[in-house]
Amino acid sequence: MAVEAHKSKIKSAPDKFKIAQFGLGMIGIEALRLAAGKPWIEVVGGVDIDPSKAGRSLASFTGIDSHQHCKVFPTFDALCNAAEPDVVLHTAGSKAGETFDQIEPMIRAGVSVSSTCEELLYPQLREPERSAQFDALCREFGAGVVGTGVNPGFVMDLLPVCLTGVSRSVESIYVQRIVNASTRRMQLQKKVGSGMDPRQFRELFRAGKAGHAGFRESAALICHCLGWEVEQITESCEPVIADHDIKTEFFSVKAGLTCGLHQIVEAHVIGRGKPLTMDLQMYLDARDPHDAVRIKGEPMLDVRINGGVAGDHATVAALVNVIPRLLRAGSGLHLMTDLAVPSFA
Amino acid sequence: MAVEAHKSKIKSAPDKFKIAQFGLGMIGIEALRLAAGKPWIEVVGGVDIDPSKAGRSLASFTGIDSHQHCKVFPTFDALCNAAEPDVVLHTAGSKAGETFDQIEPMIRAGVSVSSTCEELLYPQLREPERSAQFDALCREFGAGVVGTGVNPGFVMDLLPVCLTGVSRSVESIYVQRIVNASTRRMQLQKKVGSGMDPRQFRELFRAGKAGHAGFRESAALICHCLGWEVEQITESCEPVIADHDIKTEFFSVKAGLTCGLHQIVEAHVIGRGKPLTMDLQMYLDARDPHDAVRIKGEPMLDVRINGGVAGDHATVAALVNVIPRLLRAGSGLHLMTDLAVPSFA
Repeated sequence: MAVEAHKSKIKSAPDKFKIAQFGLGMIGIEALRLAAGKPWIEVVGGVDIDPSKAGRSLASFTGIDSHQHCKVFPTFDALCNAAEPDVVLHTAGSKAGETFDQIEPMIRAGVSVSSTCEELLYPQLREPERSAQFDALCREFGAGVVGTGVNPGFVMDLLPVCLTGVSRSVESIYVQRIVNASTRRMQLQKKVGSGMDPRQFRELFRAGKAGHAGFRESAALICHCLGWEVEQITESCEPVIADHDIKTEFFSVKAGLTCGLHQIVEAHVIGRGKPLTMDLQMYLDARDPHDAVRIKGEPMLDVRINGGVAGDHATVAALVNVIPRLLRAGSGLHLMTDLAVPSFA
Repeated sequence: MAVEAHKSKIKSAPDKFKIAQFGLGMIGIEALRLAAGKPWIEVVGGVDIDPSKAGRSLASFTGIDSHQHCKVFPTFDALCNAAEPDVVLHTAGSKAGETFDQIEPMIRAGVSVSSTCEELLYPQLREPERSAQFDALCREFGAGVVGTGVNPGFVMDLLPVCLTGVSRSVESIYVQRIVNASTRRMQLQKKVGSGMDPRQFRELFRAGKAGHAGFRESAALICHCLGWEVEQITESCEPVIADHDIKTEFFSVKAGLTCGLHQIVEAHVIGRGKPLTMDLQMYLDARDPHDAVRIKGEPMLDVRINGGVAGDHATVAALVNVIPRLLRAGSGLHLMTDLAVPSFA
C-alpha cells in the first residue's frame, strides 16, 4: 500500500528532507525561496488549488533555477504520486477545521506538516474532539503536525512561555505587540482594515471576518503551558482611526477612517482572576513599534524587543526552521512548546 | 538486580515525581523549598558529602514541615537504598568531569539528573569523549541528564538560540549581561572578586580559579545550535576597579580594589570570522543592570530585559521547572536546547 510505503518517514534521518509547498501565496513562495538556500532541504513540488497555477513549474513563482523541475499539482494526492515529500509546508488557511481537511491526505500518506494556520497553534481550543482524533491519526500513520509562525507562534505565546522557564512563580503575564503596518506588505495593511469605514470594520470583526487570527489560541497556549485552567477567553477589537491623511505604497487613508486595529485578549483563569492580558496594535504610521513581555512573579521579567519582530520574514523562517525539530519529535499533533527549543536551522 | 528495578523510570509518568537533592548549599536548599510547593513533586531525601550534614533531616535545612521525614545521606547509594528517586537535583559543582564522577552512580541506578553544573550545559566542549560515553551510559540505564540554570542555561545561550527560531539568516549575535552584584547574595559578591587586589584577581582568573564558570559553554552551545563550526573560543576577564568606597551587606571595598568582573567570550567560526560576542559584567553598584541580545540578520532582533533576570531565584526555578521536560525527553545526555521549550512547571 502506498500509505505503508510512506509511513515512518520521521524515523529516518536522511541527508536531505524532501519538502513540498502547499499554497503558493506570498508566504508560500517566500518559504520556497528560503528553503532553496538550505543544504538540508530538497524541494520536490508544490500544490495549489488555483487551476491557473497547476502544471506550472515552481521556478515560475520563485525565480529559482533549481525549482525548474518542480511542478505545481492541483492536489496533494497528485503531487504524492509524482514525488514523495517528507514534509509539507502548509500556508493555505487560518481555520483549524479547514486545515485538518486539507492536511488529512498528507497525514494518511505519513507526511508531516509544518503549517502557518493560525488556529493550529492550539487547535484544541476550537476543535477539541477533532484535535484528539487527528493526534491519533498522526500516530497511526507516523506523521507529525505543528502550527507555527511569528504571531501566533512566537512573539506573543512561545516567547512568554519560554521566559517562565526561569520563574519560581508567575502571578500575571502582560504581552504587547505594536506593529507599524506602514512598513509591511499589502496583505497586512488590508487585514488591519486600512481605509475601511470604522463601523464596517467593527461589523466585520463581530462576524469573524476581520482582526488578527489566532489571538485566542496564543492565550490558550500560554494558559495550557502554565497549567492555568481557563474559564473564559475574552477578545475585543477596535479600529484605530487615522488622525491624519495617510498614504502608503498600497493605501490612501483619509483622516477619520480605519488605519489599523487594536485587539485585546484576556484569559480568565479559575482561582486566578485575569492573569493574562495580550494587547495587539497594528496600524499605519504606528510610532515606537515593539514587542514586550512583562511577567509579574519571582523573578520579575521585563522584556522588550525594540522595533518588534518583523512578521513576514520571521513567519517564513519559523515555518522552515521548525522542520528538523518537528521530525525529531516523532508522530502526533504537536504544539510548538512541545518541540525542542526553536533555533535557526 | 537493583539497577534493573530502577531502569526506565523516565518512561512511567506517575502523579508525583520523587526528587532527591544532591548538595545542600544555598541553591540546593532553595530548590527543596521551591519543590515543596509543587503538587507534582515528592521530596524523598538529600545527599551531602559534608559529614556534619549527614543524618539530619532536610527540614533542619529548609524549615519545611513536610521535609521532617526526609534524611540527608552521605552518599547517593545510601540514599538510593532507602528511597527511590526518579530525579536528582544536582547542585554540587561547576566542572563537567567532577560532575560526571558524582552522577555516575545515579545514572547506573536509572535515576535522571537535573544539574546546575555550569560545564554540563555543553559538556562536549571540555569532555568530548566522556560526554559520548556518558550519553551511551544514560541510554543503557534509562536515565536522562541535563545541565541548566539562568546563566549559563538561559539568558546568554538558550534565549539567543530561541530567538533565532524566527531568523531567515543570522549574521552575528551579541549578548550582554550586566549584573548589579550589590543586590546579590554573598557568594556572588565573593565570586566576582569583591575587595580583591586586582593583580591577584587576574592571577586567579588565569589559574582558572576566578570568573564566571560556563561562559565558553554558552558560546559553544549557541554555535552548536546554529551549525557554526567553531575554530576557537577566546575568553578574557578583567577586574572592575571600584572608583569609590563601596559597602554592601557582606563586603567593604576600598576605591582601587576589585569590585567585580568584566568577562568577554568570542567565538571564531570557520568561514564566518567572529560572529558571536558575549559580554558579561558583574560588579558592585553597577548601573542599569540588564540583559540584551542583538541578532544581526533577517530580521534584525534587538531584545532587552530591563533589570536583567535575577540569578538566584531563576537558577533554582530552571533546575526544578526542567524536570517534566527532562523526563519526557527520554534517556541520554541532553542539551537544554534539545528539550521542549522551557516553561514554568
